[in-house]
Amino acid sequence: MGPNIAIYPGSFDPLTNGHLDLIERGSRLFDSLLVAILRNENKTSLFTVEERAQMLCQAVQGLANVSVESFDGLLVRFAADRGARVILRGIRAVSDYEYELQMALMNRKLHPDLETVFMLPGEAYSYVSSRLVMEVFRVGGSVKDLVPAHVEQRLKAKGRI
Amino acid sequence: MGPNIAIYPGSFDPLTNGHLDLIERGSRLFDSLLVAILRNENKTSLFTVEERAQMLCQAVQGLANVSVESFDGLLVRFAADRGARVILRGIRAVSDYEYELQMALMNRKLHPDLETVFMLPGEAYSYVSSRLVMEVFRVGGSVKDLVPAHVEQRLKAKGRI
Amino acid sequence: MGPNIAIYPGSFDPLTNGHLDLIERGSRLFDSLLVAILRNENKTSLFTVEERAQMLCQAVQGLANVSVESFDGLLVRFAADRGARVILRGIRAVSDYEYELQMALMNRKLHPDLETVFMLPGEAYSYVSSRLVMEVFRVGGSVKDLVPAHVEQRLKAKGRI
Amino acid sequence: MGPNIAIYPGSFDPLTNGHLDLIERGSRLFDSLLVAILRNENKTSLFTVEERAQMLCQAVQGLANVSVESFDGLLVRFAADRGARVILRGIRAVSDYEYELQMALMNRKLHPDLETVFMLPGEAYSYVSSRLVMEVFRVGGSVKDLVPAHVEQRLKAKGRI
Amino acid sequence: MGPNIAIYPGSFDPLTNGHLDLIERGSRLFDSLLVAILRNENKTSLFTVEERAQMLCQAVQGLANVSVESFDGLLVRFAADRGARVILRGIRAVSDYEYELQMALMNRKLHPDLETVFMLPGEAYSYVSSRLVMEVFRVGGSVKDLVPAHVEQRLKAKGRI
Amino acid sequence: MGPNIAIYPGSFDPLTNGHLDLIERGSRLFDSLLVAILRNENKTSLFTVEERAQMLCQAVQGLANVSVESFDGLLVRFAADRGARVILRGIRAVSDYEYELQMALMNRKLHPDLETVFMLPGEAYSYVSSRLVMEVFRVGGSVKDLVPAHVEQRLKAKGRI
Repeated sequence: MGPNIAIYPGSFDPLTNGHLDLIERGSRLFDSLLVAILRNENKTSLFTVEERAQMLCQAVQGLANVSVESFDGLLVRFAADRGARVILRGIRAVSDYEYELQMALMNRKLHPDLETVFMLPGEAYSYVSSRLVMEVFRVGGSVKDLVPAHVEQRLKAKGRI
Repeated sequence: MGPNIAIYPGSFDPLTNGHLDLIERGSRLFDSLLVAILRNENKTSLFTVEERAQMLCQAVQGLANVSVESFDGLLVRFAADRGARVILRGIRAVSDYEYELQMALMNRKLHPDLETVFMLPGEAYSYVSSRLVMEVFRVGGSVKDLVPAHVEQRLKAKGRI
Repeated sequence: MGPNIAIYPGSFDPLTNGHLDLIERGSRLFDSLLVAILRNENKTSLFTVEERAQMLCQAVQGLANVSVESFDGLLVRFAADRGARVILRGIRAVSDYEYELQMALMNRKLHPDLETVFMLPGEAYSYVSSRLVMEVFRVGGSVKDLVPAHVEQRLKAKGRI
Repeated sequence: MGPNIAIYPGSFDPLTNGHLDLIERGSRLFDSLLVAILRNENKTSLFTVEERAQMLCQAVQGLANVSVESFDGLLVRFAADRGARVILRGIRAVSDYEYELQMALMNRKLHPDLETVFMLPGEAYSYVSSRLVMEVFRVGGSVKDLVPAHVEQRLKAKGRI
Repeated sequence: MGPNIAIYPGSFDPLTNGHLDLIERGSRLFDSLLVAILRNENKTSLFTVEERAQMLCQAVQGLANVSVESFDGLLVRFAADRGARVILRGIRAVSDYEYELQMALMNRKLHPDLETVFMLPGEAYSYVSSRLVMEVFRVGGSVKDLVPAHVEQRLKAKGRI
Repeated sequence: MGPNIAIYPGSFDPLTNGHLDLIERGSRLFDSLLVAILRNENKTSLFTVEERAQMLCQAVQGLANVSVESFDGLLVRFAADRGARVILRGIRAVSDYEYELQMALMNRKLHPDLETVFMLPGEAYSYVSSRLVMEVFRVGGSVKDLVPAHVEQRLKAKGRI
């Protein structure tokens, strides 16, 4: 078998400390970890894909076996193109898990050789999602401790959303 | 008592093999089964109600006791107009079930004589929803095995969504 | 097709108003409903199978198409012997539902022609289970409104459990 | 310690009998209860904040220790400004609960001295949400028993939504 | 209204840091908090009710408005005897919540004036239950950080369970 | 880093096709996979640990990087002794997941360097648990397709349980 490459897909709009915690955990388990930003034209986003990629690259620069790319189209096809054997996903709440399970079964149907693997973020991040971070920021709350410092600066530079 | 008529409401945008599996199971349990397409002006849809009706009719033509109609307004009123005693719903995931339970209790409140009855689709369809089918199709994935062949053709005729 | 016979299996130790509500709902949907008491030698019970059958018979005597039997062995085999096409189950909470779903899939695997159908008890019974009724009775609480009057008398006749 | 003030935040678009049931329960447990209407510019609403406040004020006028205000910005900051020690939330279904739990942990992170406290609405309201009330009203169903009479009148005055 | 007394029932076999966290939170919200140890003869326990009461008393001695008692019989009757208006319960996982909800509805049925109120333990204790603490201890794991120091000593004094 | 060793703990009483499916998936992702049978003296079992080990060894003999051992005491200590970096667990239903999540957080607390990783068994095994297999067997149902053929033979040799 070749190297054990895992892909960690998401929107990362914006990157949170919960994502980063999972990336670090994943980087210790797999030979290499590819963070894959989903280009979704249909969904309005706060940061452009390029901004999100920059924030991710800055955050993972100390992790030698982690790289960042964006993709559109079918995740399993992109994963196969990159030689990945694993899709990595974080799970927190039960409702997460249900959606993740549906996606994982669909992805297995589309590409039976790719396995979805779930890991738990640190419990301090069990309630940290991009959506909640944006909601807190939008109403003027502090997002320190929820996102990396450079992401907080970018949010502030965007101004009141 | 008159015949035991069940109504199976939904958007069917588009019809999936999961829906079809449930229709077949329902048609074996009830004297007749009326598939009822919800006309929801407020929600953007891929196929028109007429297209959805055509796809459903083609799919159920081998099932003698199954008919297809569309409706707007209150489901329980339409069901009562048609003489139905049962609302049939499929359940897969837990989150499905919660919403379905709320709807069932509300429908019982609105029309106490109508019973909601839940059945399980075949486990091969546990992850097949219209939304996921459209997502897979939109990014260029194969929806063969997820929808009937004539629905797949219609999707292709629509082109990239 | 022959008559549409449904089977409603359970321990009924003891019969609650929640069970009875479901039996009434089921008796209106199916040609006949067979209430099937599981003989489970491995499980300690409060009432004997005979006592449970007597309580059920008394409770359903006004429902012409409902009968009561006990069984051991495989439920699907007993159901098939009786000509049933449907296994009827009530669902309340999510945790119920999960176990019920596993059982339903297993029963479908063992006997693909038998469908499991789920109905909701009246919301007043959403928290009434045999176990909770016994717990309340054991510590001296009133089980009026939770079980039929003749079941309450039987409980009192048993004395402090 | 000063008086035990609780805050009950929500959109109340519109107020339902489920909300009102919870307000009554909360008013009996805390020294005073402040119903706080969230001003959310980003979300389209049926009633204006002022209309919602009027409907709430009319509904709670018999409850001496209940007041109504609207707020924007961070809930925990508004709560602290008003001297509240408790955020009161109702929980019904499991999916509710999951979202509520995430919000409660986030609010504790933002303001550790504020406790979120959950209560159950009466079981007759377990399926009554503002969204479902609006859906029923939109398709011409009766919302009597689901909302206070004066809210029903306001809905009718709005006409078909 | 008289003082706002809350009752916090449980087995506390043994007391964990999760229980203690909840007791502290509850003591800040209510005029007084009564920790009520359930005497359940039917259930085998590690510590006697007296030992559990001693451990609780030692743990709460710095909290002036917290007292400890044991009870058998119906919780709602004991709570009413003590003048409590609130039953306090902690919730962590969804499955907890479901059982808690059933109990809360049953208790409301048995005694409509008593409200059950749910609070969240600190997230560091989201996975700490008496059962899991005992399992870890039984196989020789460290329970430091999971239970108070004097409970850890008592466990060690019991020896290998 | 050394080889990526995963440990798959369980009771395997008896081994099911669901377990075997997960073992095969895990053996493709990790350098080696150690199946670890929990010796639990407190729990009555159908097969002895030795019988379970024999059944597992026979089932995995075609998988070069899979080995079988039994253990008692703390899982994380055994895993560390064997140089494992990963605890592998299968998840099916939501209730599974909740318990698994609690265990995973506890194991992380006890040994922060060990990661728990979750994978999904094939959907055909979503309802296959050791407990349900035993229940079906006990009442005379066929467990073909649910367990490997040699496990079915062992069950039959045990006779009616």
